[in-house]
Amino acid sequence: MQHTELGVVHTSIERADPAAVEALSAFGVATVHEAMGRVGLLRPYVRPVYPGARLCGTAVTVLLQPGDNWMMHVAAEQVREGDVVVAACTTESEDGFFGELLATSFRARGARGLVIDGGVRDVADLERMDFPVFSRAVNAKGTVKATLGSVNVPVVCANALVRPGDVVVADVDGVVVVPRERAADVAEASATREANEEEKRQRFRAGELGLDIYGMREPLGELGLRYED
Amino acid sequence: MQHTELGVVHTSIERADPAAVEALSAFGVATVHEAMGRVGLLRPYVRPVYPGARLCGTAVTVLLQPGDNWMMHVAAEQVREGDVVVAACTTESEDGFFGELLATSFRARGARGLVIDGGVRDVADLERMDFPVFSRAVNAKGTVKATLGSVNVPVVCANALVRPGDVVVADVDGVVVVPRERAADVAEASATREANEEEKRQRFRAGELGLDIYGMREPLGELGLRYED
Amino acid sequence: MQHTELGVVHTSIERADPAAVEALSAFGVATVHEAMGRVGLLRPYVRPVYPGARLCGTAVTVLLQPGDNWMMHVAAEQVREGDVVVAACTTESEDGFFGELLATSFRARGARGLVIDGGVRDVADLERMDFPVFSRAVNAKGTVKATLGSVNVPVVCANALVRPGDVVVADVDGVVVVPRERAADVAEASATREANEEEKRQRFRAGELGLDIYGMREPLGELGLRYED
Amino acid sequence: MQHTELGVVHTSIERADPAAVEALSAFGVATVHEAMGRVGLLRPYVRPVYPGARLCGTAVTVLLQPGDNWMMHVAAEQVREGDVVVAACTTESEDGFFGELLATSFRARGARGLVIDGGVRDVADLERMDFPVFSRAVNAKGTVKATLGSVNVPVVCANALVRPGDVVVADVDGVVVVPRERAADVAEASATREANEEEKRQRFRAGELGLDIYGMREPLGELGLRYED
Amino acid sequence: MQHTELGVVHTSIERADPAAVEALSAFGVATVHEAMGRVGLLRPYVRPVYPGARLCGTAVTVLLQPGDNWMMHVAAEQVREGDVVVAACTTESEDGFFGELLATSFRARGARGLVIDGGVRDVADLERMDFPVFSRAVNAKGTVKATLGSVNVPVVCANALVRPGDVVVADVDGVVVVPRERAADVAEASATREANEEEKRQRFRAGELGLDIYGMREPLGELGLRYED
Amino acid sequence: MQHTELGVVHTSIERADPAAVEALSAFGVATVHEAMGRVGLLRPYVRPVYPGARLCGTAVTVLLQPGDNWMMHVAAEQVREGDVVVAACTTESEDGFFGELLATSFRARGARGLVIDGGVRDVADLERMDFPVFSRAVNAKGTVKATLGSVNVPVVCANALVRPGDVVVADVDGVVVVPRERAADVAEASATREANEEEKRQRFRAGELGLDIYGMREPLGELGLRYED
Repeated sequence: MQHTELGVVHTSIERADPAAVEALSAFGVATVHEAMGRVGLLRPYVRPVYPGARLCGTAVTVLLQPGDNWMMHVAAEQVREGDVVVAACTTESEDGFFGELLATSFRARGARGLVIDGGVRDVADLERMDFPVFSRAVNAKGTVKATLGSVNVPVVCANALVRPGDVVVADVDGVVVVPRERAADVAEASATREANEEEKRQRFRAGELGLDIYGMREPLGELGLRYED
Repeated sequence: MQHTELGVVHTSIERADPAAVEALSAFGVATVHEAMGRVGLLRPYVRPVYPGARLCGTAVTVLLQPGDNWMMHVAAEQVREGDVVVAACTTESEDGFFGELLATSFRARGARGLVIDGGVRDVADLERMDFPVFSRAVNAKGTVKATLGSVNVPVVCANALVRPGDVVVADVDGVVVVPRERAADVAEASATREANEEEKRQRFRAGELGLDIYGMREPLGELGLRYED
Repeated sequence: MQHTELGVVHTSIERADPAAVEALSAFGVATVHEAMGRVGLLRPYVRPVYPGARLCGTAVTVLLQPGDNWMMHVAAEQVREGDVVVAACTTESEDGFFGELLATSFRARGARGLVIDGGVRDVADLERMDFPVFSRAVNAKGTVKATLGSVNVPVVCANALVRPGDVVVADVDGVVVVPRERAADVAEASATREANEEEKRQRFRAGELGLDIYGMREPLGELGLRYED
Repeated sequence: MQHTELGVVHTSIERADPAAVEALSAFGVATVHEAMGRVGLLRPYVRPVYPGARLCGTAVTVLLQPGDNWMMHVAAEQVREGDVVVAACTTESEDGFFGELLATSFRARGARGLVIDGGVRDVADLERMDFPVFSRAVNAKGTVKATLGSVNVPVVCANALVRPGDVVVADVDGVVVVPRERAADVAEASATREANEEEKRQRFRAGELGLDIYGMREPLGELGLRYED
Repeated sequence: MQHTELGVVHTSIERADPAAVEALSAFGVATVHEAMGRVGLLRPYVRPVYPGARLCGTAVTVLLQPGDNWMMHVAAEQVREGDVVVAACTTESEDGFFGELLATSFRARGARGLVIDGGVRDVADLERMDFPVFSRAVNAKGTVKATLGSVNVPVVCANALVRPGDVVVADVDGVVVVPRERAADVAEASATREANEEEKRQRFRAGELGLDIYGMREPLGELGLRYED
Repeated sequence: MQHTELGVVHTSIERADPAAVEALSAFGVATVHEAMGRVGLLRPYVRPVYPGARLCGTAVTVLLQPGDNWMMHVAAEQVREGDVVVAACTTESEDGFFGELLATSFRARGARGLVIDGGVRDVADLERMDFPVFSRAVNAKGTVKATLGSVNVPVVCANALVRPGDVVVADVDGVVVVPRERAADVAEASATREANEEEKRQRFRAGELGLDIYGMREPLGELGLRYED
């Protein structure tokens, strides 16, 4: 893995297998996160900017400087059909790094959405365009174009490591990153998990208790759980 | 009042009078809070997870450990028709303690909703089910089942004391707890308050000022409020 | 400019030119903020309390004491058709200073909405009335009427200076204040800005890159941006 | 237990046994919290205002209104030798409710310190007087005296229930509340705990591992912990 | 008053009378804030970076861009003996805008310290130099020099309006701004206030209660405060 | 690079060259961060728990579960002379994962300190032992030992990627991670940087301006900076 570094653009990245991405897009974030062993989740302060936003695609990563969105334009050129731009920042910054014009550009290049550890603006337009964005803030404050960051280096975004080409899945429950090498396995594990849940759902609906479905009474008793009138 | 303690489940709790709960369900949180003398409000960081969520019912309390939702399953067995599960945690934790399967279980047992000083997930499903949840966070991060907490002990949830059987009312304005002994009185005071407000509403609508409706000009003058051109 | 001071109400204020306010109301907050040179934005923690809320009007300012909304009633008398009440507080306070009755009063006096560095309640009613409110919190906690603040003094609201009569524009992207003397100029600059953007939007939509539209390749190269395979 | 209510002062409270308080004062907060079963801790945002501050005493409780410290003066009269004033607020407020003059008054009445879910000021003086204060903020902003709160009602302070007469222990690690009925038992359990730790400390110092001291290798293996080169 | 604007340096500013500044330097922030009528306080998140830091001087204001400290160097040239640099930012930014080299420069120009709504670094050096700094964060993250801000325009710093030449007083209790025209009056009012406090201090020390010293019993009774056994 | 995974301990890790670690230990965090190109800094909420704490060593990484410090004991066995334990958590958790007993154990194994994106307790003891700890919180709340995490996997700690064997440098300005392969280069660049600064320090001390030392007047003028009287 190359190191995180400022001032560089990697033009050849290895993207996860499209079939695996397609398979993963059928599942919710909570399911994918469980299926991959409970790692890879971004901090929950990254939220959808409009109701119903969801996305699944391969990461083109951007490392931004605070209050400066120059690298977003550099990233646009690297976007291919099916990508999701994942933008981190060298420091905490909630400025509006992204708005309707960049969304228009990203969409024209084939992007499926944006995940950003920063702020965005033109949120009413983004909703109208149905261009899904997950951000830490909404902020009308625009940015300058003065300092170099990087594109397609590994970045830490909202406390999660994202490498170019990894799969990013996002919905109302949050954002999870699946390493590209694990995409197919995690999709399969997600399917298995969903299948198992349906049987339990039926039992819960019928009034059965998790205590019995999962056989919890004995271990709870062994740990000393005490029932009192 | 028994003390807060870990590792115990109280199976007999005294619930507020159902008629009083029914009466309280007609009022908004702001009205109930005023009517009971401006105490009992949870901290405002507890928010509905979908638009339009509202609930009113009797508390089954849960004391959770961080990142561990085992006691939610223990609580399910204690739920009766008309209850609301109120979950506190021994420390600050925003993990997703609750999702669609538990909601299915709680509903099957008669629960009217959940108030939790923690995180929840499967929010799109919760909205589809219209199972009202008020939480401090949305978080795809699941939880383990490894450590004992308690059910139906008094808990402090988002800085408010909640005892089993107390009435919990929640809507877009927040969450308020009415001690079970005061439920009928507070319902009555809420009705009185609403009646009074209607008359004032008419006067405000007609352009009359609060300064005159409430007779504020004299006390303001006495305190020295100065009008300048 | 008179100083910020407690216990005074200014009854004659100079409002921005109505035609300029009308002109500004056609633009979004992000556009106005750019057009006036990237100053005047409130901190982004002030958010609309319901989806779709927007407003544009001249400021009647209020300086509140924590947990005390007495001055809101004093302010109501100073409101004229087309005003927006802008409420600051002498300290951080998220209590519910404002609800449906005051909204009824403000509307009857001609107010177009409220911007408050504090909390509000009766949010469901405010949405039903379509009375736009931008606040830092939703909170059922009511307030007392015991201490003097001021009306129509300059205030600092969410880190922005607002003088009585300045223009306030608010939408989903945030809240911006335009000094009354600059209202016409900023409206004109906003119109120019929007016109310029339309041409760029077409080029972005056609797949052209910001790198080329804005001529960024050369300055990026001069700063040393490196492309690697 | 009487309910939390505004506008009342309880003049007779039952204080924990002085010998038990004396015994508890020998232990740190972390030890006491463990010894009482890991409940009763205030949220960790309550911090000492100067290095080395520590206290142990019986609670005189105060329920404040935001930005209003009137009840602190009412509380002073209820203080007896060995008490600690515990101040909660009906809402989040970080104003400076307390300073050097009140500290002088409290000390003259026998108080051992203050725990407050709010702000304080004159911190340099408090340190000079060595009057221990644990607060959520330091804030020069003074308060008014206009609205009733209560004294010696049960309060929720920084998410912990505190009843008049309970024991409060505070040091650099935080603040814990011991119910008055449990004071002697918890003191004894604290002593036992400290004795046990000394033996372990010796073994750790000698380089022995917790894995062996606590017999953790087997349960870790059973859960599937995998060692890889 | 000129407007806040980017890209301008005002070289002639009107500073508060040096004798008034000298007089104000004798008082603590809490006293000055009370004496000027409880306005002018910065938000309490601005804290001293080392114990014992205090300052009093006339403001040279700086408006920074996020992550960019270029204007600090521009400001250095405007500093005169007895000034305090007050740095605001166009957005929230906690980068380290200031360190030991700039402190050396500012001191050489006569500055008495820095108040900044941002981060600083080299804190160990600042303490060794005893160069008082009040900031919102400590952060090793350095800044670029790429974008224009302004010097000696009015700024809003941590929610307080500061004009060039105003007096800034800072100590462990916080930071307060005294408008230059009011400096002498506020110094005098501060002295009066301190004199009054000494008499009260003696009475408190002797065990007298605020209830009696301030004559609070009657108004409390009128509001309905109830004493119960 | 192996992936982050739960339930595994890597017993052979490649540590940075000891001579390079020794060389890095001579520099402050701000210098090292600049020297390595302004990457690798942890978020600034990780702070020293006592004044004067500093450390430099090679990382033994730990991935904790919320409220569970079992893996700290597993990590102790992997510690070698000169290591620093770097503990991340699968979610945000401020519980007290670490105290004086574990510090005794870590020190006995050769550890130079701890960096943790969580809470710690026994802070008075840690200071007495002079065992440097950098944490996000101080919290008396203890933890359980029930769930598997990992040791010596790459972790994201306070938004920075840390791999086992990387160099960690921490002081009052923050915490920075130097990839093990770059340790020698960064130490050399740090030395160069410090040498350059000394010359500038002399010029600043003599009253010279950064505007002239760095030749800033021309570029500022080109960008349009305007001086006005």
